Amino acid sequence: MTYREFGVAILGAGRIGMLHAENIVTAVPGLTLKMVVDPVPAAIERAHESFGVEVDEDWRAAVQNPEVDAVIICSPTDQHAAQIREAAAAGKHIFCEKPIARDLEFIDELLAHVEEQGVKLQTGFNRRFDRNFAALRNWIVGGEIGDLWVLKITSRDPEPPPLSYLQDSGGLFFDMTIHDFDMARFLAGAEVREVTACGSAMVSEETKEAGDVDTALITLRFENGVLAQIDNCRQATYGYDQRIEAHGRSGMLLADNERADTVTFADSDGFHRQPSPRFFLERYHDSYVRELESFRGALEGGPVAVSGLDGRQAVLAAAAADIALRERRTVTLEEVAQDLKVESTARRADG
Amino acid sequence: MTYREFGVAILGAGRIGMLHAENIVTAVPGLTLKMVVDPVPAAIERAHESFGVEVDEDWRAAVQNPEVDAVIICSPTDQHAAQIREAAAAGKHIFCEKPIARDLEFIDELLAHVEEQGVKLQTGFNRRFDRNFAALRNWIVGGEIGDLWVLKITSRDPEPPPLSYLQDSGGLFFDMTIHDFDMARFLAGAEVREVTACGSAMVSEETKEAGDVDTALITLRFENGVLAQIDNCRQATYGYDQRIEAHGRSGMLLADNERADTVTFADSDGFHRQPSPRFFLERYHDSYVRELESFRGALEGGPVAVSGLDGRQAVLAAAAADIALRERRTVTLEEVAQDLKVESTARRADG
Amino acid sequence: MTYREFGVAILGAGRIGMLHAENIVTAVPGLTLKMVVDPVPAAIERAHESFGVEVDEDWRAAVQNPEVDAVIICSPTDQHAAQIREAAAAGKHIFCEKPIARDLEFIDELLAHVEEQGVKLQTGFNRRFDRNFAALRNWIVGGEIGDLWVLKITSRDPEPPPLSYLQDSGGLFFDMTIHDFDMARFLAGAEVREVTACGSAMVSEETKEAGDVDTALITLRFENGVLAQIDNCRQATYGYDQRIEAHGRSGMLLADNERADTVTFADSDGFHRQPSPRFFLERYHDSYVRELESFRGALEGGPVAVSGLDGRQAVLAAAAADIALRERRTVTLEEVAQDLKVESTARRADG
Amino acid sequence: MTYREFGVAILGAGRIGMLHAENIVTAVPGLTLKMVVDPVPAAIERAHESFGVEVDEDWRAAVQNPEVDAVIICSPTDQHAAQIREAAAAGKHIFCEKPIARDLEFIDELLAHVEEQGVKLQTGFNRRFDRNFAALRNWIVGGEIGDLWVLKITSRDPEPPPLSYLQDSGGLFFDMTIHDFDMARFLAGAEVREVTACGSAMVSEETKEAGDVDTALITLRFENGVLAQIDNCRQATYGYDQRIEAHGRSGMLLADNERADTVTFADSDGFHRQPSPRFFLERYHDSYVRELESFRGALEGGPVAVSGLDGRQAVLAAAAADIALRERRTVTLEEVAQDLKVESTARRADG
Repeated sequence: MTYREFGVAILGAGRIGMLHAENIVTAVPGLTLKMVVDPVPAAIERAHESFGVEVDEDWRAAVQNPEVDAVIICSPTDQHAAQIREAAAAGKHIFCEKPIARDLEFIDELLAHVEEQGVKLQTGFNRRFDRNFAALRNWIVGGEIGDLWVLKITSRDPEPPPLSYLQDSGGLFFDMTIHDFDMARFLAGAEVREVTACGSAMVSEETKEAGDVDTALITLRFENGVLAQIDNCRQATYGYDQRIEAHGRSGMLLADNERADTVTFADSDGFHRQPSPRFFLERYHDSYVRELESFRGALEGGPVAVSGLDGRQAVLAAAAADIALRERRTVTLEEVAQDLKVESTARRADG
Repeated sequence: MTYREFGVAILGAGRIGMLHAENIVTAVPGLTLKMVVDPVPAAIERAHESFGVEVDEDWRAAVQNPEVDAVIICSPTDQHAAQIREAAAAGKHIFCEKPIARDLEFIDELLAHVEEQGVKLQTGFNRRFDRNFAALRNWIVGGEIGDLWVLKITSRDPEPPPLSYLQDSGGLFFDMTIHDFDMARFLAGAEVREVTACGSAMVSEETKEAGDVDTALITLRFENGVLAQIDNCRQATYGYDQRIEAHGRSGMLLADNERADTVTFADSDGFHRQPSPRFFLERYHDSYVRELESFRGALEGGPVAVSGLDGRQAVLAAAAADIALRERRTVTLEEVAQDLKVESTARRADG
Repeated sequence: MTYREFGVAILGAGRIGMLHAENIVTAVPGLTLKMVVDPVPAAIERAHESFGVEVDEDWRAAVQNPEVDAVIICSPTDQHAAQIREAAAAGKHIFCEKPIARDLEFIDELLAHVEEQGVKLQTGFNRRFDRNFAALRNWIVGGEIGDLWVLKITSRDPEPPPLSYLQDSGGLFFDMTIHDFDMARFLAGAEVREVTACGSAMVSEETKEAGDVDTALITLRFENGVLAQIDNCRQATYGYDQRIEAHGRSGMLLADNERADTVTFADSDGFHRQPSPRFFLERYHDSYVRELESFRGALEGGPVAVSGLDGRQAVLAAAAADIALRERRTVTLEEVAQDLKVESTARRADG
Repeated sequence: MTYREFGVAILGAGRIGMLHAENIVTAVPGLTLKMVVDPVPAAIERAHESFGVEVDEDWRAAVQNPEVDAVIICSPTDQHAAQIREAAAAGKHIFCEKPIARDLEFIDELLAHVEEQGVKLQTGFNRRFDRNFAALRNWIVGGEIGDLWVLKITSRDPEPPPLSYLQDSGGLFFDMTIHDFDMARFLAGAEVREVTACGSAMVSEETKEAGDVDTALITLRFENGVLAQIDNCRQATYGYDQRIEAHGRSGMLLADNERADTVTFADSDGFHRQPSPRFFLERYHDSYVRELESFRGALEGGPVAVSGLDGRQAVLAAAAADIALRERRTVTLEEVAQDLKVESTARRADG
């Protein structure tokens, strides 16, 4: 099969940027890697060596490059807004890693701008493309379990990120749970109405000092009545723990963890299996390819599978969870959105 | 092995009373069934036919019977208090089905009375004796998963009880979740500090009309920092769903459902296994025998495995959950206990 | 439910005899233990203490006891013939542990005698009553996998028996595989036509010195075309390994091992489960109760579930396997049966 | 990472040839596809369209192409000999699909010729590179299960090939079991000493008419005492069934089937999972890539992972199985090799 070719630039040559670059080069025909940009010289040097493409320290070089049809934004969150704004202004299509931004008001302005410019924007919620979760959703959508009642998402990282990452992450809800908020919305087929959250810093003193939690249980109620439970932790010794249950009126679905291999070893101590694949690059390897294939489909004129609105709504839920945790009460998304408008009006009045 | 013999009377010849009677007769040497009492003539007739023992419509006949060393209270909850009080006064040891009572103040008075009379009181939280959950707890207590961080309890009935039962049940938290509150305490090794709850009437209109919920997600925080998630539902088409996960600093434990048999059938539609055992009589069959063996141990002078305090604390958590659900906020057990004292003082002032 | 009562005597107070005695006393209403006989004084003393029944060193006391309706023969194999003959002559019904005898000619005479006397004879192939294998057979008989093509039986003991037992066991095929021959016949629904066998003494030097094998792979072809593979070993460090696969034209069935509990423990080394239940008393606990319930049904006038012929055919297959192993060729049961007649005629001519 | 580049030609543009071509182009850096040859015009046209490389109807064009460093032989078995001979003579390295040839004498001549010419020859036993079986072997080699005693290989195709394929396949043992013979050798770490086989045409009348079997149970004894059981069938409704068990003195290993996804669906009929991946292209997808990576390693000067001798020995076992099945007896490989020499001497005498 042959594809129309689209030139692509990667903005940000960190771990996830390099992953997308490699997938584009080896696994996604139709996308051609044209540039990798990053302010760190060593990073773009490595990118140049690996892929033999043009590199630049200034991301604006990518936005202005006429060979570039689309940018893939993998930079730190605080640069997303400027990059989205200028890329859209230059008529480039955009794939943006989550979160689009942390400030909801900002996101709304950006999405309006993107729509005005008539470019496509896809948010990087790759887990929607995981074969297991995609299959689970197909069962739900196909009506196999009847009315959906309860979702249960287990999402536990193998180990906490370094402190430097933590301090810049926006907190557990914006960094880690945001994937689960999106997954819950994806599966529930509705918007979140209310969020309740309970959490602690159990894994490390560092998290506590950073004012964050590393272990949290979050409960959601959706507009269509679906309830959801999210279980997050920054540490799981047995590997990356990514499971989902969906309970409906007539049945249940359970997506279990992937296995490193199918071998069981048995001895006088019992039966043993390898730990789960260690982390997201391994566990979600295929989903990263599929989300770019999906983005290619959007570039070819198809619909965007994960929209900017999807990105916004997950941020809204994260903001509500933050308040719910602090105030030990159920928080509605309506309340958060309302507060934002008030704050934003106040800010403009101040300005 | 031979055992000292203790005479036992069953108070209440319903489903659970007859189960205990049969277990005493066939599976628990050392306990001798002496009487079955129940106000319903047909019920005691059936008991007499099955076990050939003395029966009576008046439960006081059991309490006064000199051959009876211990009573097993399986009557409706509103009779528990009177039966406990008089049995203790008559020097009979007591095994009481949950909940001891719904009114906490009442429970406190009863427990004080039982202690004064120097008789033993065991609460019927049979699940502690389930081989799987008991094994899971042993792993925790043995330190295998390090500091315990998070418990996740799935407890879903195969189908809702009849409306008549629902109306009299005290609501989901007092009737169903109470087992899970006790299990969480049993595994956490600490008292519940706070309860948050979210729920709906999804299974049937009847529940809604009864002002109850049939689906609920409850979050607990324990005094020692452990967090717990409980997932309850009155309906699970695939059988009785009883699972527990425990996550700690160095590992994880998962107690899965029992299987009806170990057979997998495979055809062009895939791989198939039987539904889970249908309900608690089947699933927890062995645990009912073991809790009576444990009670026998207490009668012989050993410690009581599940105390009256255990019964009280689960009721306290249920009361907190009720408030948390209505007021959409986290409720501390301290607050509930305080309110009780206030109410109770007020009531006495009124009286 | 009430049952007609039948008086029962146990012949042989070893491990399996005491198991049957306990099951009769605690779990099989309708059978009443009247006597336990064994030539070893200590054995019957223990039986008397445990069950409070009449005991005797001479098994003929049981056969002559008018209170005894049926004998359960658990003595060493070389005593089975005399006990069956005299019990039948005295009009007692018979439950006999496998093998009925090792000499096929003998078995044929015994079965004829039993039939003449009009008493019932059940052979102790308890595994037919295992819930998993019984369920698997129901699927086959129900036509769920279409025409049956291939059976695969894994039957591996946790550890080899003591040398004394080995020397007296008649060899692996008569002692251990005999259960699998019966299971294969039970599932195939036909008689074995041919046997091929391959084996070694791998577990211990003792087996080799005893001229036996402890590890064997046996292949069967049935009269109806079904093929079967049996995998036997005297040692499995991970517990008693008892599994069956059945492959048919339209599907497959797999009966897996029972689990000690449903708990999985996970840590940085991976996922761990307990070893399988250690041995047959544990694994087949329920099947021993059910085979006696089935025997009770036969005493009440029902059909015998596992006949003397079933006992004979398994011995015939074992004899064929012995020749197949030594001569490294496929051996038909017809050939073995023919040889027996020849030998038997020769013996009579000699006599 | 960068690799030395080797030019590669595919001989035979059928299913497996095209698979190797695609893997070379998309997944194995270091190998460059230079040519695809096939006598069927439509086949090479398709290859040209897909990969844009030179094509030819005459395989000698590939052998003479100076840009080609190695040939990958995917042609019908009867062409392997000529292609190997001429490729070796032209100094090309060789990757050859199994079986190298069906005539053992031929194979010996070819291997001698290849050695003389100093080129590398790898046999296409891709399953050695399957992550599960490779892991299982690592456990064995690492001594985790102690002395290896018994191997059990289940290898059942989803559905029989068309009659035309069957007639040309050389029979079940040469076409299908050959993979299992190699796997058993790979895991046993020794040569096969004896083969016993039992089989039938159960799946289809066509197989019977072709004088072949479609269902077979094969037993092997290795020079080091290891015993092995192979279970083959041309039909499995539930998907491609590829499992291995290894039993040793101190433990057991079990490589289970891969799953299409990790989802379980549960309803009132029980628990359900998707069928296994349908066939080898799916199940062994990764192993095909890894065997070419391994071949690249050999081209770079490393050892050949699966040698010509490996290819020869599997054919020898298949020949023994053929005799064993017909003569219903255990056949030694020594006997087969001896007969070959006799035949070959006789043939030469005739010639």
